[in-house]
Amino acid sequence: MNRKMVLKLLCHMLWAEALLMLPSLLLSLCYGEWGGAMGFVWSILLLGVCGLPGVCLRPKNRVIYAREGIVIVALSWLILSLFGALPFYFSGAIPRYIDCFFETVSGFTTTGATILAQIEGLPLGILFWRSFTHWVGGMGVLVFVLAIIPLAGERSMHLMRAEVPGPSVGKLVPRVRSTAMILYGIYIALTALEVIFLLFGGMPLYDSVVTAFATAGTGGFAVKNASIAAYGSAYIEWVITVFMALFGVNFNLFYFILLGQVGRSLRSEELRWYLGIILFCTAAIAINILPLYGSLGEAVRYSAFEVSSTITTTGFVTANYDLWPLFSKTIILLLMIVGASAGSTGGGIKVVRLIIMCKIGRRELRRMIHPRSVSQVKVEGRPVEEDTLRGVTAYLCLYALVACAGMLLISLDSLNLEETISAVLTCLGNVGPGFGRIGPVGNFSTLTDLSKLVLSAAMLTGRLEIFPMVMLCIPSVWRKK
Amino acid sequence: MNRKMVLKLLCHMLWAEALLMLPSLLLSLCYGEWGGAMGFVWSILLLGVCGLPGVCLRPKNRVIYAREGIVIVALSWLILSLFGALPFYFSGAIPRYIDCFFETVSGFTTTGATILAQIEGLPLGILFWRSFTHWVGGMGVLVFVLAIIPLAGERSMHLMRAEVPGPSVGKLVPRVRSTAMILYGIYIALTALEVIFLLFGGMPLYDSVVTAFATAGTGGFAVKNASIAAYGSAYIEWVITVFMALFGVNFNLFYFILLGQVGRSLRSEELRWYLGIILFCTAAIAINILPLYGSLGEAVRYSAFEVSSTITTTGFVTANYDLWPLFSKTIILLLMIVGASAGSTGGGIKVVRLIIMCKIGRRELRRMIHPRSVSQVKVEGRPVEEDTLRGVTAYLCLYALVACAGMLLISLDSLNLEETISAVLTCLGNVGPGFGRIGPVGNFSTLTDLSKLVLSAAMLTGRLEIFPMVMLCIPSVWRKK
Repeated sequence: MNRKMVLKLLCHMLWAEALLMLPSLLLSLCYGEWGGAMGFVWSILLLGVCGLPGVCLRPKNRVIYAREGIVIVALSWLILSLFGALPFYFSGAIPRYIDCFFETVSGFTTTGATILAQIEGLPLGILFWRSFTHWVGGMGVLVFVLAIIPLAGERSMHLMRAEVPGPSVGKLVPRVRSTAMILYGIYIALTALEVIFLLFGGMPLYDSVVTAFATAGTGGFAVKNASIAAYGSAYIEWVITVFMALFGVNFNLFYFILLGQVGRSLRSEELRWYLGIILFCTAAIAINILPLYGSLGEAVRYSAFEVSSTITTTGFVTANYDLWPLFSKTIILLLMIVGASAGSTGGGIKVVRLIIMCKIGRRELRRMIHPRSVSQVKVEGRPVEEDTLRGVTAYLCLYALVACAGMLLISLDSLNLEETISAVLTCLGNVGPGFGRIGPVGNFSTLTDLSKLVLSAAMLTGRLEIFPMVMLCIPSVWRKK
Repeated sequence: MNRKMVLKLLCHMLWAEALLMLPSLLLSLCYGEWGGAMGFVWSILLLGVCGLPGVCLRPKNRVIYAREGIVIVALSWLILSLFGALPFYFSGAIPRYIDCFFETVSGFTTTGATILAQIEGLPLGILFWRSFTHWVGGMGVLVFVLAIIPLAGERSMHLMRAEVPGPSVGKLVPRVRSTAMILYGIYIALTALEVIFLLFGGMPLYDSVVTAFATAGTGGFAVKNASIAAYGSAYIEWVITVFMALFGVNFNLFYFILLGQVGRSLRSEELRWYLGIILFCTAAIAINILPLYGSLGEAVRYSAFEVSSTITTTGFVTANYDLWPLFSKTIILLLMIVGASAGSTGGGIKVVRLIIMCKIGRRELRRMIHPRSVSQVKVEGRPVEEDTLRGVTAYLCLYALVACAGMLLISLDSLNLEETISAVLTCLGNVGPGFGRIGPVGNFSTLTDLSKLVLSAAMLTGRLEIFPMVMLCIPSVWRKK
């Protein structure tokens, strides 16, 4: 373990976070919210001081291996959340630090689970920071840093691989930094586009920007208590439905479209499954909830929004789905596990891993029928390497084990089984709301501190795709070479 | 597909089932239960007639390949359940045929889920048949047939492999038939031993025998409405606790003990995990339910029984665990998935697959830390072949997919989410009771016919370890060569 290099990069991350807080500080000043502004000032000062050792450290060996990359990513997310919680705490917007930490982890991991019962009335600068964490966390904090500063040369691929969702990360262009900049370019453009569309629907500028942040990062924090339902506009809901679905698509496909290779994007197997699941679930839920809403149009509107919100793991809400029939609720619960596409900003196990799961099962069935046949698992028309396959199965095994461990720990709280299972799955999948007390009209404030810590860990574990957070718990990782 | 040979073997199975009904018929006659006796007479006659084509069929090609083996096993279980339901129907003990079918599937698959609200008062011969299906299904219907008649020569290994639980089936001795006979010998001896122990506790002979059947097969049908709690005897409960745990152990280990290789048995990795899980869960639940029972002795008594009953997927009940704290209920729910050891009569995914899951995760973590290292998954000190590993991961993927599909279908019923999830997991794991309306004091009678069919399919799928039942749905399996 190249500890000096790890420490140096972590210090850089702290300074980067100080930079990220500047827009929120400026906004606080513009709105004349002095309490909020002071919260940011103190946080930025603390970040600046704590990041100082980074300047003094001059490691001889600047090489980062896979192990260092993973540790840096895991620690960065942990430390950024610890410090990112400070503005909430210093400004007094959220009185208890553990709640601030939960809210920040939920923000950076783009989960959107909140401990706030009363959102309206909080300082706008603070709420801006809350939504901004979604936007930063969606694409990845380190990818962001990579896009700005050439920290670790081409070795930084290890960083990107540990942070970007999906079983295999490809470079779009030879240089990692350029890839990161292309991805961020697409991200910014799509976010801006959503802001424009929302403004057209009569949403105020501030609301449009923070809603776009939360959609882009597939986060789900809203600035209204009633989430998106507060705007009561079918146009706004459909805009958000479509943009949520867009941000759940592999960003590489947008890049191909920019290059004019539209056909290549549309032929994507994962995209077809992803859209197929959305259409199927929307139809199934719409038929199921039709008696509740009377008209098919209304049923489809609420169903499409909820399906898009859940599969992309955003977590915006327009209807209290807790009152829907169990069939619809079961679909929503399963979508929490499925999640969005690889290489998107969404969470969950990702559609491509679901495809691989099905194909692994099919290969074994085929092998039982024709014992001597050799068949490969193919995705996107290409055989999946056995190494990737091993990675996927290991991921799925650990996902299941972590989920079970989480449920056991959360069951010590006073929730019921439905709430417990949904709490773990919604946090591990970075969705946001669950069922019952933590459902669409509830929040996580009444949980015990232990539950909040466990769910924070689940959110980080889910966002970084299990391995990095588990790795931190293994002693041998920390050993010097 | 060698259809003639498949048909011939299926006909033999029908005759075998007619034979299996004889003890119950005799018992009905002894007790003077003419209604019950006539139910058996009609069933046996029907089985005899339907099995007649087996005599006429003289397939030229008597070879059975893996594909035929799997199809025979899957169809046998389905057909045996369809015909095994007849005594319940003809005798009038259970008025609706779908309920008879559910009860029989539950019996043969050793699940123990019942649609009977009122068990006491039913004809004793009928109840004997109900418990006897557990005993037959526990070790495997085809293994039983193999032990008696040399049907298909040494090719019958394919049959055994498809029926005996666990990722890899070994022959104890070179000849399959001898292996089957050794296993049945151990099975009979242990069952007899339990009967003796139960008689010592003052349990009536009839109750002892049917209880031993249900324990041996890890089934769970009791002849009292209150299950084992009805006897109110700590001695009887402890005897059953220990025997349930014994029948959840790989039978090969008993064979090694018979050969004097006690050390080899005790060194078994799966056995250690299995006992470790039992001890850990017993302790955790006992501490959790201590306030409900007052004394540690009582808490351990109920906790140990419930843990042993659930991990071995038996499903006997001594306490209404539905009233226990959520932590205990969550442990019980997870144990339903874990299940017993491979090569035992228990269901679930089996402890050895849980071990492999953990080790697959660990191997990948190690590979991320040391990318160039080559590490194998080792179980019982030996490396697991990649083929077996692929089979295990495929099994786990399909298990998860089947469970999700089952939950979706059951969610169309009027249960709540807790009941839905537990219904699917308890049936897929061949446990028996779930939570709530289908919990320890409830039953499955109020479910819709669709739910009963889906859960019957889940029980069969779980008992035959997923692949055979899924295979039946693939058209290419049925094609002639």
